Amino acid sequence: MPASPPTRTLADSVAAGDERALARAATLLEAVTAEGRSLLKALFPLTGKAMIIGVTGPPGAGKSTLVDQLIGACRAQSRSVGVIAVDPSSPYSRGALLGDRIRMQRHHNDNGVFIRSMATRGKLGGLAQATLDLALLLDAAGRSVIFIETVGVGQDEIDIAQLADITVVTLVPGMGDDVQAVKAGIMEIADVFAVNKSDLPGADALVQAIEFMQTLGERAAPGHSAPVCKVKAIDGAGIPELWAAIQKAFDAKGKQDAFTGVWEIRLREHLRETILCDLPSETLSLYASRVARRAEDPYSAVAGLKAEMLASRK
Amino acid sequence: MPASPPTRTLADSVAAGDERALARAATLLEAVTAEGRSLLKALFPLTGKAMIIGVTGPPGAGKSTLVDQLIGACRAQSRSVGVIAVDPSSPYSRGALLGDRIRMQRHHNDNGVFIRSMATRGKLGGLAQATLDLALLLDAAGRSVIFIETVGVGQDEIDIAQLADITVVTLVPGMGDDVQAVKAGIMEIADVFAVNKSDLPGADALVQAIEFMQTLGERAAPGHSAPVCKVKAIDGAGIPELWAAIQKAFDAKGKQDAFTGVWEIRLREHLRETILCDLPSETLSLYASRVARRAEDPYSAVAGLKAEMLASRK
Repeated sequence: MPASPPTRTLADSVAAGDERALARAATLLEAVTAEGRSLLKALFPLTGKAMIIGVTGPPGAGKSTLVDQLIGACRAQSRSVGVIAVDPSSPYSRGALLGDRIRMQRHHNDNGVFIRSMATRGKLGGLAQATLDLALLLDAAGRSVIFIETVGVGQDEIDIAQLADITVVTLVPGMGDDVQAVKAGIMEIADVFAVNKSDLPGADALVQAIEFMQTLGERAAPGHSAPVCKVKAIDGAGIPELWAAIQKAFDAKGKQDAFTGVWEIRLREHLRETILCDLPSETLSLYASRVARRAEDPYSAVAGLKAEMLASRK
Repeated sequence: MPASPPTRTLADSVAAGDERALARAATLLEAVTAEGRSLLKALFPLTGKAMIIGVTGPPGAGKSTLVDQLIGACRAQSRSVGVIAVDPSSPYSRGALLGDRIRMQRHHNDNGVFIRSMATRGKLGGLAQATLDLALLLDAAGRSVIFIETVGVGQDEIDIAQLADITVVTLVPGMGDDVQAVKAGIMEIADVFAVNKSDLPGADALVQAIEFMQTLGERAAPGHSAPVCKVKAIDGAGIPELWAAIQKAFDAKGKQDAFTGVWEIRLREHLRETILCDLPSETLSLYASRVARRAEDPYSAVAGLKAEMLASRK
């Protein structure tokens, strides 16, 4: 079925690089409308060209400042940029409030830099899916480099790292002997490490610790460790070297988006997020109330719900 | 269908409070065996009695030490304890290595304290589901208080908080002006705040900041803010007051496990985790390869996969 005329027009404008169209399209996606979805379908053949860079790390590592500097490096090469700042906090109202601060101020008036903040759509929302949709939109719109900045350390970051071609893990000295910050899964997802605030005491020790930890894991193999770059995002020291390391890692690894395995993960995730939309809430409530009063165990209830979902297919 | 005899025997032993049976049962659950599942079905009617306390907060907040002190408070009241230490890092090998340190050493030889570390089962594993299963087991085994300690800040913690009756958010002074640590969703899930290392400079300012933030959110209502307790977990200062605050919050809020709404979320989550088990991996691969080479868009692919799953129902 052909897309409806207004969608077609918007898709054409996005594909042509029109920024106002891009902003409108991003808003449509955020609202999870049918129009947004059909727009993405129309634009999908144009995707697969951008370099997608995930930037993650624990709170306080200076990720936004680092991304700001990397945007500068891209713009110096006349590459257009998209930035997706992911903030998983906002279903809990206060996060959204605090998240409203303007990020990356100095690029605000640069048409070559398109910045969006993303929040989760809630419990069943699928932050990774929404982030992927927006990244695909930016890719189709011809953005050459897309940064996905994530706050915090945890499963969200791991999920989102799977959307990126290259993941930059940002760490800072002075987290003391607390290994927690670097152990929550993020060591393994790094293609490049950035040790920020590298003028602080302990920077060299942190570099050594990262290099040592890399000799331990399952990725450990001669010549395959992720490079560690010392930077000072605040004044730009070390940024050219970091940017070169990112580009080198991308050249070595290739565009992840072209791999079947990557799409297996993405489709599976997407399916998992969407399939429950078919479950009537009354049915769910009925089973839940039986479990809550211990009239049925939860495992039998899940089996029952699954059978009902499949039986009631449209 | 009645449970097979060995399972029945193990269930009886768990229900009778036998610790070796509990340890064996926990191992069965971790291995995700059919035996573990049928054990939980048999034990489910015995659940719903324990007080489940989630303890979360950013890396370095001293959560393990705090839990250790709270265990002491429970034992002083002769209440039996279960502890689930959740470490989401271990699919990425290094985390498991570091996670092997022995936690809560001083309770190691106390039969009234049962401690298990949990790791995610990987991408599709459902850490929250596995944690819930173990909590139900400990509940059925008659543990009076169950602590769920989570590392990090993010969606995992929010998911796991939904399993707890009471969530204690642990923060420490000296995170500077970085609001990230307290904004990633964890402010809203707190029933009680513990400001640990309260002898450090900035403790009072942190207490005030927490109290201020609570006046902003959607939960804000006179008389409904979560209490803020200053503690020093290292020497136990403030622990009796914290323990009293937790008990008071529990009395006010009630056992979450008895609410239909709580089970709606849990069942839905469980269903989401399990439903894709029916999808043949060849089918997924076929669709993924089409999308990877841009022969089909991902949204149409998901629709196609959904139709195939439903058509192939057993």
